[in-house]
Amino acid sequence: MSLLRYDVTTGDWLVLASARASRPDRTGERRRSEPAPHVPHDPDCPFCAGNEAKTPPTIDAEPDPADASRWSVRLIENKFPALMSDARTERRLTGPLFREMDGHGRHEVLIESPDHGRALAEQPAAQVVRVLEVLHRRATALGRDPRLEVVQIFKNSGSAAGSSIPHPHFQIIATPIVPRQLRIKFETAADHYQVTGSSVYVELCRAEVEAAVRVVASNEDFVAFTPFASRTPYEVWILPRQAAPTFDLADRATLPALAALLIDVLGRLRAVLDDPPFNLIVNSAPRRHADEPDFVWHIEILPRLAHAAGFELATGMAINPVEPELAAERLRERTRRDP
Amino acid sequence: MSLLRYDVTTGDWLVLASARASRPDRTGERRRSEPAPHVPHDPDCPFCAGNEAKTPPTIDAEPDPADASRWSVRLIENKFPALMSDARTERRLTGPLFREMDGHGRHEVLIESPDHGRALAEQPAAQVVRVLEVLHRRATALGRDPRLEVVQIFKNSGSAAGSSIPHPHFQIIATPIVPRQLRIKFETAADHYQVTGSSVYVELCRAEVEAAVRVVASNEDFVAFTPFASRTPYEVWILPRQAAPTFDLADRATLPALAALLIDVLGRLRAVLDDPPFNLIVNSAPRRHADEPDFVWHIEILPRLAHAAGFELATGMAINPVEPELAAERLRERTRRDP
Repeated sequence: MSLLRYDVTTGDWLVLASARASRPDRTGERRRSEPAPHVPHDPDCPFCAGNEAKTPPTIDAEPDPADASRWSVRLIENKFPALMSDARTERRLTGPLFREMDGHGRHEVLIESPDHGRALAEQPAAQVVRVLEVLHRRATALGRDPRLEVVQIFKNSGSAAGSSIPHPHFQIIATPIVPRQLRIKFETAADHYQVTGSSVYVELCRAEVEAAVRVVASNEDFVAFTPFASRTPYEVWILPRQAAPTFDLADRATLPALAALLIDVLGRLRAVLDDPPFNLIVNSAPRRHADEPDFVWHIEILPRLAHAAGFELATGMAINPVEPELAAERLRERTRRDP
Repeated sequence: MSLLRYDVTTGDWLVLASARASRPDRTGERRRSEPAPHVPHDPDCPFCAGNEAKTPPTIDAEPDPADASRWSVRLIENKFPALMSDARTERRLTGPLFREMDGHGRHEVLIESPDHGRALAEQPAAQVVRVLEVLHRRATALGRDPRLEVVQIFKNSGSAAGSSIPHPHFQIIATPIVPRQLRIKFETAADHYQVTGSSVYVELCRAEVEAAVRVVASNEDFVAFTPFASRTPYEVWILPRQAAPTFDLADRATLPALAALLIDVLGRLRAVLDDPPFNLIVNSAPRRHADEPDFVWHIEILPRLAHAAGFELATGMAINPVEPELAAERLRERTRRDP
């Protein structure tokens, strides 16, 4: 059972999830300079094919196109969930200023393929499309639950990015509140729309395409760029050319173009930064704003090349030592990783 | 030369400081389980006595009480500063939505003692008082500059906490803007004061003392507790019993009590968590709110036991696997580290 607690000094909610303290760390200690040998199967990995009994049951899956008795993408509940269904969402005061609620929500895992060692950037395009299809379907289903405010899709790659299982996977956490950082983001977008009559994300995408210096790659449906205000070195955003407030409202017909650009951009990052640890975030408007034109869903890829230090934790103000214009130039020059 | 850039999607400013990309990392790769041998002097360390010529000149110092020709605490400008004096604070638009300004501000380093290997928790109380005296003096001086909005004092200990030089030191970064995360914190405190007529920090300190379950240690002038809404395992706050909005407005006569509690709390963290990497943050109201009773300066100590992952980066919502009540209980049980 987890709890949400409210911080009266900031307006943040946080999750207390003591069950997660017992989850195993299976990442080992690979040094970054060692070439990673490709291990397609690890008999001890709970996400590998054949070990399905070690995980919670399948929620959704895509079959292997070559053998329908096998899965090629599999979505399950997280075995050590930060939030769980069927908890109550009433807030209670446990003392003056001490507000908390049960940890209602969802915490799920999408296993990207049966292959233990194949990174998303190295998957065939059709497999990445299947991953996106399952994420899209699940986001649609979770978006219908009126007790879930935000459906946050993300991916941690590498232990420095917070991953505890090396088998490539995405995660989904759906929360019963709108976290303050997101609330500010959505309010900023709503304010911008009220003033200008257009979405700040549409304008930003247009301005980055016009400035051209930070564009990394693009295709008919998506644009990838290192944003003007990049918080981390080699931060990359992918924005759809066709605006929609949430990922599940994106046109399914554009998912192959997204898969192609994702493989391209992640391949460039691997080539330039030698397979960096990274987080990938899919930003969507919360359920209560999903009918508004203010926000445009988008992907943020954040390589984790340095540890945040005291100044960043204290102020929320990033210190980025690499100009995004330089990062974009280097990413444009290289494509896939050398063999 | 550094730049500040404004993120139109969040209201954040960030620092682009490409000079910092060239700073050396001198932390090496000590494994956490190895006992750290005490190395009092490293001839290659720029912060060790005798190597003063390798750093920018002394701004402030405390002499060694046993030998006035030597320093015991030394404050200098950071050799790779994120922000620099005498830059202009005018904002400029370099394209639609692309707002930036020169990186005006200060970035300084306080070397805690000539001893290369002695952690703050292991210093004699008199030495920690000297450290606090110099920080207090410098915060007072920087607080007078009308172009500096926030004077942020912090300490990174261990490479996982973002430190690049192992010789124990504090840092001060003074910024020409109020970072959005701090602005929200101060506005939250101001709103609370307008509604209740008292500071949320005064109320919180009183409530934690009354609840008692999260108090770690205290003395006549300060209280240390693991806050109800702890974002990280073993997060500890130290609040003064005598409210003041900024650290430089704290009564100097209370600095010995602060030094004693700081040594006590850091010693307990070392004992329970085996010398963890941590960040220490001194929170103060910004210059423009320094006359208001809303905010109370305080110290936050954040052990860095796990890497933030995609969910935290996306939402700002922490997932903490250790109840603060349990952390406080364990910290109360142990004092200094076993030899």
